[in-house]
This record gives sequence, structure tokens and C-alpha cells, in this order.
Amino acid sequence: MERIREKIIRALSGRKLSYWKLLKEVSSPLVEVVQTLKDLLEKGEVIWDEEEKVLYLKEEGEEVPSFQCPACLGKGRVIKGEFEKAFLKYMEIAQNRPPSIPEYDQGFILPEDLVHKAILMHEKCDLENRKILILGDDDLFSIYVGLVGKCEKITVVEIDERLVNFINEVSSTEKLEIEVFPYDLSNPLPQQLKNSFDVFVSEPPESLEGFICFLTRGKEGLKERGSGYIGLTTLESTYEKWGEIQKWCLNNGFVITDILKNFSRYWERVQDWEKFYSHFRMLKELPFNPGPVDEDWYTSDLLRIERITPRKLQSQDLYMDEETWATPLSFSHGD
Amino acid sequence: MERIREKIIRALSGRKLSYWKLLKEVSSPLVEVVQTLKDLLEKGEVIWDEEEKVLYLKEEGEEVPSFQCPACLGKGRVIKGEFEKAFLKYMEIAQNRPPSIPEYDQGFILPEDLVHKAILMHEKCDLENRKILILGDDDLFSIYVGLVGKCEKITVVEIDERLVNFINEVSSTEKLEIEVFPYDLSNPLPQQLKNSFDVFVSEPPESLEGFICFLTRGKEGLKERGSGYIGLTTLESTYEKWGEIQKWCLNNGFVITDILKNFSRYWERVQDWEKFYSHFRMLKELPFNPGPVDEDWYTSDLLRIERITPRKLQSQDLYMDEETWATPLSFSHGD
Repeated sequence: MERIREKIIRALSGRKLSYWKLLKEVSSPLVEVVQTLKDLLEKGEVIWDEEEKVLYLKEEGEEVPSFQCPACLGKGRVIKGEFEKAFLKYMEIAQNRPPSIPEYDQGFILPEDLVHKAILMHEKCDLENRKILILGDDDLFSIYVGLVGKCEKITVVEIDERLVNFINEVSSTEKLEIEVFPYDLSNPLPQQLKNSFDVFVSEPPESLEGFICFLTRGKEGLKERGSGYIGLTTLESTYEKWGEIQKWCLNNGFVITDILKNFSRYWERVQDWEKFYSHFRMLKELPFNPGPVDEDWYTSDLLRIERITPRKLQSQDLYMDEETWATPLSFSHGD
Repeated sequence: MERIREKIIRALSGRKLSYWKLLKEVSSPLVEVVQTLKDLLEKGEVIWDEEEKVLYLKEEGEEVPSFQCPACLGKGRVIKGEFEKAFLKYMEIAQNRPPSIPEYDQGFILPEDLVHKAILMHEKCDLENRKILILGDDDLFSIYVGLVGKCEKITVVEIDERLVNFINEVSSTEKLEIEVFPYDLSNPLPQQLKNSFDVFVSEPPESLEGFICFLTRGKEGLKERGSGYIGLTTLESTYEKWGEIQKWCLNNGFVITDILKNFSRYWERVQDWEKFYSHFRMLKELPFNPGPVDEDWYTSDLLRIERITPRKLQSQDLYMDEETWATPLSFSHGD
């Protein structure tokens, strides 16, 4: 809990923040943020201004500078070329998307962040000429990668009929040839989709059960050496839950190759979540009403996993094994 | 192997590259790169120009654009403020460092990348007022974080007496109060260092045995909820080895919180590795002499791990568990 306390104090140092902006800054389990915030409010170290709907420190302090690159906003990559062209077209199309509904825990990732996901997949050789399986597609990622036009095949499985229809229509109008199956991910993957994809992409529900269920479907869909791109938050999942998820991955023949913090932001304005907020446990537990949402506060980390073939490695000593081809062999053996 | 073949073809598409620049681009297991390259050369798809010491494609193709942010070179962060000030001072001091020696598998990380590591630690609340344990310090990271001046305590364990003396001297001249123990990491950590640090930092050897040995020392040094920053390459470690390392982490009470690709570059010019290159297994296996090193080709990924307290999570259904505080409960239960 200590780290969260410090993150809150640091975020508020020298400035006032809305609850939503604070959440974005600390990006830690809501369970722990709310508890720590309650404690800090009780002790009088943090103060809630009901009028302005902001939090601030009793002892003001100095603002802690951000080191985020202003050019790429911390992504390390820039959007350009065919990825930018497809992005502009996508923005036009996505205007007519069906609104998000809470029954299926839907939420839309910011289009810029979908583009970054596709660029990352491109860099990892997971896009061009690849067969992609998208498990749940309220983000309309299928349409974006369809517009980029590099994949060999794009397949979507989706429970929400409105989305199935929308993706089908766009696919037909834009000649994207996306294959869409209406399907409930709590059932095993249809036989014809098993072991046939190079890559799966998913933003699973955050409950441990739901997460593992979606991962299992991804595993069922993949070919040998296939990879998966999965969104996971530190908001609704403690690192204890992360540990369980990672164990599942390793016990099921995957390795984790990349973990990119706060990769995907969820789009408040468009998904119109606010009307569901009163149903969030977070708001019931919070000792104040945080007021209107003024930040895309819900972000998820991106995990990339890859199937491996476990095998025994031969170690020679502390410095050498059969893969250490850029370590000076003869020296460590003293010749 | 398929992905590596594509990475090589893509890297060479529309341009000629030295072997070293190609390695930097593909950043894949040397074992597999060399084998794939041999195959491509045999088939005549890739050609080695002995005169110019470059590789190129038979079918030239078009250059594949890079999406790296030109402002931060892909780091997502910028160096500034006190981190920049300390960097300038460090550069001055490090000029007099003892040269790297192969007996201990030494290699120096580029100073810019040490700065980025410290900034990342700062962002994660792993620097300010923290007790840091550095396991092996040929990079002189202790001196850099000492100059930044935020840590509560900096302790180094190091086998190489020249480094022990150098760090001690600088620490005394610059009043950094770094604690340095001459110590061979193949032995258990001295009793007085056990369970007393918030963070450990290490660039372990790449053999599985050596890697796990260094991780074990890190674990021994940490307090509850402590974290570790570890460099691991995809050059000398296949993802199969990564899988073994990750399993060790999860089975030893850690979770992996971040994996940042190509975070640390090793500094060719300064470490003067070239004289050891003839002792690398890579050069014995390569079907040509690649000539002078013209790139900082050896890079490592940065893994952050954190100690957790494993516990059973209560799931309610596919969407809800006790941590999903921003998922609309009442809807998924139909009220």
C-alpha cells in the first residue's frame, strides 16, 4: 500500500486534481486507491474540495515534473503512412458505431491507441500476411486493421449482434472481407476456428475467471508459435491477480514478451459510460461524489504473449549456456 | 524461425546493412539469426558483399519505414532536470572507469539508458527514499543514482576489485555514501544484506544458471513488496529460456510488471569488446567475417518484477470479482 500512498501524494504535490485525473496519474488498483484516499482524507493529509470537485494536499509541496515525451506522449512511436491513412478513414466510419452497453462490459479504446497496437503488431511481424483472431470487438479493431490492409485474414467472434451487423456492413461496403461469428466466448471456440490463427487480440473482462476464459479461447485459436495481444489493467486487477494470470500463461505454453504500461486509454466521451457510473462499486465506496468525468482515466496495459516449446537448456557454468553466443567462451574457461 | 526470417528480409528490404546493424534491427536469438542467415545465403536470397562488408537482398524491395519517435528515440521519456544534471557529471566521472574485462562478462550500458532506467524507477516510486541494492556494477549505475541524490541508501556488491575501488573513490570524493562490498554473487548474500532493500538492480549473465543465481540474490536482499529491475536479452536468450526465467519469478513470489523492449544499449566504443569477439561462439559459427563493429548492436530488454503475497480471489461471474470496481455490477446480475 505504501507505493500507492506515495503515488497519490506525488500526483497531488503542488496542484489540485479531480478524482478522475488522480486515477489516471496513479493507475493503481481502485480497491487500494479508494482505501488509501479514505485514510489520507481522514488524517487530513489530503483535502476534498466539494465546490470545485478537486483533491489537494494539506501541505502543498512542489509539482513533480513529468518525463513523458511531448512528441509521442510516451508511446515511443509515431503514427504515419498507411497507418495514418487508415486511421482517418476509421474515424469517419466509427462515428456510426453502436453505443456501448454495460451488459457485455463494453468500452472503447481511443482510436490512436488502436493504431499504436497495430503498429506494434507490425513491428513484431504479427500483422503482415497473418491470420488474426479478434475475441470481442467493441473497439472495432477489425475494421482498423482491415483498412490497413496487411493481414491475410481477419476473423472476429462477438456476442453483441449489433456489432456483428455493423462490422459485417462496413466490411461489405469497404470490401474488407472480415469474417464475423456471433458467438459467446464462455463456450469453447467453434471447431473450424481452432488452431488456425497466427495472432489473437483481446481486451478481456477484468475478473480472473473472465480473463482466463478469454485467454483459453485465444489459446484454442492459435497455431504453433502464435502470439496474443491482451489488455489488462492495474485498476481492476491487483498484481496478485496479475500473478495468477501470468502463471496461467506460463503453465499453458506461453511466454510473456512485452508489457507496456498504460498503452490503451478508454474513450470517456464516446462510450458514454457516465450513466453507468452509479452502478460501479468504486462510486459506492468513495466517501465523496467525484462529479463529472474530465479525463480518459481508464487505461489498460498491453501484454504480448507468444507460444513456446518448453525444452531443457544445457548450462556450462555461471556465464555460458548453449545460447550465449556473444559471451567470450574461452576466457570463462580460462584458456 | 519464420518470424526471424521475415525480420531479416524486412530489415534488408531496400537497403544494405552491416552484420552488426542487422543484429540491432532483428534483435533475435543469435543461435537462430545465424542459422536463418546461413540458410538465406545458401538459397541466394541474401547476399554478402565481402568488399563492403554488407548484406543485401537479391530482390531489392522497398525500405520498410520505422515508426520510432525521433524526439525520444522510442523511449517515450525525455531526460531533463536533476536527471540531466547528474548525467553530465556522471559522463565526466565515467571517463576514468576501469576498462571492461571478459572474465566477469562485463559490458557497459550507454549512460543515456542508465538515466532512463533511473527515471523509470522514479516514476514507479522505486527511487526516492528507497534502499537500492545493485548486484554487479560494471555500469556504475550506483554512481549515477548517487549523483541524482534521491535514494536513502545505495549498496553495491561487486566481484571486481578494480570496480570496488573506483566506486569507493568516487563515492568518497563526491560524498555519495555508496556502500560497496567485494563479493562473488555465486555465494549466498551476506547475512547483513538480507531482507533489507526496497529495490534490486541487476544485469545478470545470460546463461540460465547465472541468471537464476543473480535473481536469487536479488530475492534474498529484498523486503516485502520490494521490486527488481533486470536486464535480459533476446540475443542470447530464446523465449524458451525466458519462459524458464519467468516461471522462476512466479514460483518465487514475484509478478512481472513491465517488459520494455531494447531498453538498454551496450556501448561498443567504450567497452572495447572487439578484441574479445574472436572468442564469441557467434563469430565461429558465422560463414563470413563481419568486419568492424559499426553499431551498438547488443541491447537488452528491461524487466521489472515486484514481490506479491499470493492469495485466492473470489470470482462472482465472467465479468465480476472482488477487484472489478469499475464494472457495472447490477447490470451483469440483471437488476
